[in-house]
Amino acid sequence: MIVELISVGTEILLGNIVNSNAAYLSEKCAGLGLSCYYQDVVGDNEERLCETIRTALSRADILLLSGGLGPTQDDLTKEAAAKVLGKQLYLHEESKTAIQQFFDKRGLEITDNNWKQAMVPEGCIVVDNPNGTAPGIIMAENGKHVILMPGPPGEMIPMFERSIMPYLSKLQSCVIFSQTVKVCGVGESKAETMVKDLIDAQTNPTIATYAKTGEVHLRVTARAEDEKAARKLVKPMVKELKGRFGNHIYTTDDEVTLEKAVVDLLLANKLTVSTVESCTGGLLAARLINVPGVSEVFKSGYITYSNKAKRRLLGIKKNSLLKHGAVSEEIAREMAKGAAMVSKSDVTVSVTGIAGPDGGSEEKPVGLVYIGCNVCGRITVKECRFSGDRTKVRDNTVSAALSLMRQCILQYYSEVTFGSKEK
Amino acid sequence: MIVELISVGTEILLGNIVNSNAAYLSEKCAGLGLSCYYQDVVGDNEERLCETIRTALSRADILLLSGGLGPTQDDLTKEAAAKVLGKQLYLHEESKTAIQQFFDKRGLEITDNNWKQAMVPEGCIVVDNPNGTAPGIIMAENGKHVILMPGPPGEMIPMFERSIMPYLSKLQSCVIFSQTVKVCGVGESKAETMVKDLIDAQTNPTIATYAKTGEVHLRVTARAEDEKAARKLVKPMVKELKGRFGNHIYTTDDEVTLEKAVVDLLLANKLTVSTVESCTGGLLAARLINVPGVSEVFKSGYITYSNKAKRRLLGIKKNSLLKHGAVSEEIAREMAKGAAMVSKSDVTVSVTGIAGPDGGSEEKPVGLVYIGCNVCGRITVKECRFSGDRTKVRDNTVSAALSLMRQCILQYYSEVTFGSKEK
Repeated sequence: MIVELISVGTEILLGNIVNSNAAYLSEKCAGLGLSCYYQDVVGDNEERLCETIRTALSRADILLLSGGLGPTQDDLTKEAAAKVLGKQLYLHEESKTAIQQFFDKRGLEITDNNWKQAMVPEGCIVVDNPNGTAPGIIMAENGKHVILMPGPPGEMIPMFERSIMPYLSKLQSCVIFSQTVKVCGVGESKAETMVKDLIDAQTNPTIATYAKTGEVHLRVTARAEDEKAARKLVKPMVKELKGRFGNHIYTTDDEVTLEKAVVDLLLANKLTVSTVESCTGGLLAARLINVPGVSEVFKSGYITYSNKAKRRLLGIKKNSLLKHGAVSEEIAREMAKGAAMVSKSDVTVSVTGIAGPDGGSEEKPVGLVYIGCNVCGRITVKECRFSGDRTKVRDNTVSAALSLMRQCILQYYSEVTFGSKEK
Repeated sequence: MIVELISVGTEILLGNIVNSNAAYLSEKCAGLGLSCYYQDVVGDNEERLCETIRTALSRADILLLSGGLGPTQDDLTKEAAAKVLGKQLYLHEESKTAIQQFFDKRGLEITDNNWKQAMVPEGCIVVDNPNGTAPGIIMAENGKHVILMPGPPGEMIPMFERSIMPYLSKLQSCVIFSQTVKVCGVGESKAETMVKDLIDAQTNPTIATYAKTGEVHLRVTARAEDEKAARKLVKPMVKELKGRFGNHIYTTDDEVTLEKAVVDLLLANKLTVSTVESCTGGLLAARLINVPGVSEVFKSGYITYSNKAKRRLLGIKKNSLLKHGAVSEEIAREMAKGAAMVSKSDVTVSVTGIAGPDGGSEEKPVGLVYIGCNVCGRITVKECRFSGDRTKVRDNTVSAALSLMRQCILQYYSEVTFGSKEK
């Protein structure tokens, strides 16, 4: 089936906000096996909204609209959709009660215009919105489905996952099941080459590659008459990918991020961790600390942007800095070593590099970064050369550091285990 | 004049990337005084691309397309636009040379498909692309302007600013000039209330408010026959805003961010700074370190996520932590004090809070954050209550911390100056 996304809101047309809803819904629809040929953005204007809905109805089976369900005069999505489909609005008592409760719970006073949100088109399915006052609306007629959701992502996303996604799944004559294989430490083009034969030969399941900062996600999607059959199709393909990418795969779980995989690895091996950062200035620690439960393993973070801080906090010698320069393999090594001494952590990671825009030279260009990882005294240093602006260099560095941590911890334990087996 | 944005790329329809180009171009077009009623996203498909271009031509004067100018068979934007306007493509020698030079400079080999990028529609203006191999294209006919730009933001944005923006400015019968007044430490709704009378009464100049994380931008835009006249209209309005927002205004310069304003203030007063963070886990330091030139003032950053780290790195007493809890005014104060002792910095900022999703209680809910700022021994602690998820709480905390730093430094110097004048 064909889906078309319509985002409603003058704030998007003015560039006030980025249309992240469209990206979210597109990815979800692709996962459901729906084809999306167009996305539209239109302002809070009845005539233009009606025209957009009419055009979309002429070329898609499912219309997913977000935004314009608020209580003000400007919010017209529901009115426009009802008009195009020739439906009257009526007061939906349950929605009225839900709105009343929403306000009561927060001790807020209702203004008259809020009741507008309880008006719904005749014959529609009203969808609960536990995170706001605008209910969702599903209108189905002549094989077309027009679905209205609120604009704020904090309301739209939970509503989509709880109510709209199951509705869309049922529309499909088959079941779609997908699993994501997340790979780190392999470049995008290399990963694509490694699966090119599979993509060229694919029918069911299909494989799609998604390049993320410092990682690649491979999504395997199968269609079948039921979930069990779809899972059965996905399984051998995931196994094939596991064979090709080995332990570059850090998870096959959609919910697990690279930083979570690293934290889980630390937890599983009862390892504590500390970070010491120069050019990333705290971003690496911030990503680790974004994982709930990290407090069990994270000891401390040091940001030693200046040479003085490197010397004072980590005990790095002035001579080393003069001899090798702050951005060098040797200093990354000494930073990882020094951080272990002062933090008494099992694992320490160090970052030193030139994020730009200034500070580069012929010998040490912008984008040159050294990452050190110290696992129980065994130190590995990786040299990276990133392109792009300051932000891109920093983001890539953080992903590379997480990837290196994972690799070094795995290596340490495989060697330790191997060693003990040899005895 | 009316502008319509068309973003081309199957990767947007699949949700692989967020359409940040559209947000960027919308904001710029609004600043140029162009009205935007629709944004479209369409895949790399000739038929659908042609249909989208035709529809847009029927309702807009200017079409801004981005994406689909690459060297592969999939890249069809130029071919589709030429087809709709009835133009032939020819080999543009200068573009061919530029592509050759681009590859030579990087020591890369050209593949045959790259020459496709040197083909341009007859009668068009070819726009230089110093950051890539796809030139931009401007086609003008019968009062309509179809403008093609490459998709990667690193190529599109410089091209737009250098070549397309001046072209669009000239199309307007008048000149548009705008200036942004950036405000921190005032909430979005309060800021809107403070300028409501100005917005209600506005004709020329106009005021638009843009809510950013922890700050509000007020854009004053005037139209006039030349820039001098437009500037003259903007000036008294900016003065009026300065009167209303006082030193909550941190800049009236588009290029200056809040973190840059703080770093500039530190530089101007020859103050060194260190950070000590708990729930933000390095994000505050990372934002400061994103400012080029920060190395003059930034001494060190500490991430003391655990209580143990707070005690060991900053010398905070176990009793204090037990008595008040890690998230408390007292601990924020002791962290700011301890950081000054160990880092020997003039200014230290501390952050301790509950970012969620867990760890909240009735008394100390998720979103409760204490920020301490120590300027030469004078410590201020601010209590904040943020809503939203972990990321939102952390981002808001960082902005609030920067805002507090600025306020405390200004206050310190105004009192010091005042004190010395009194003598």
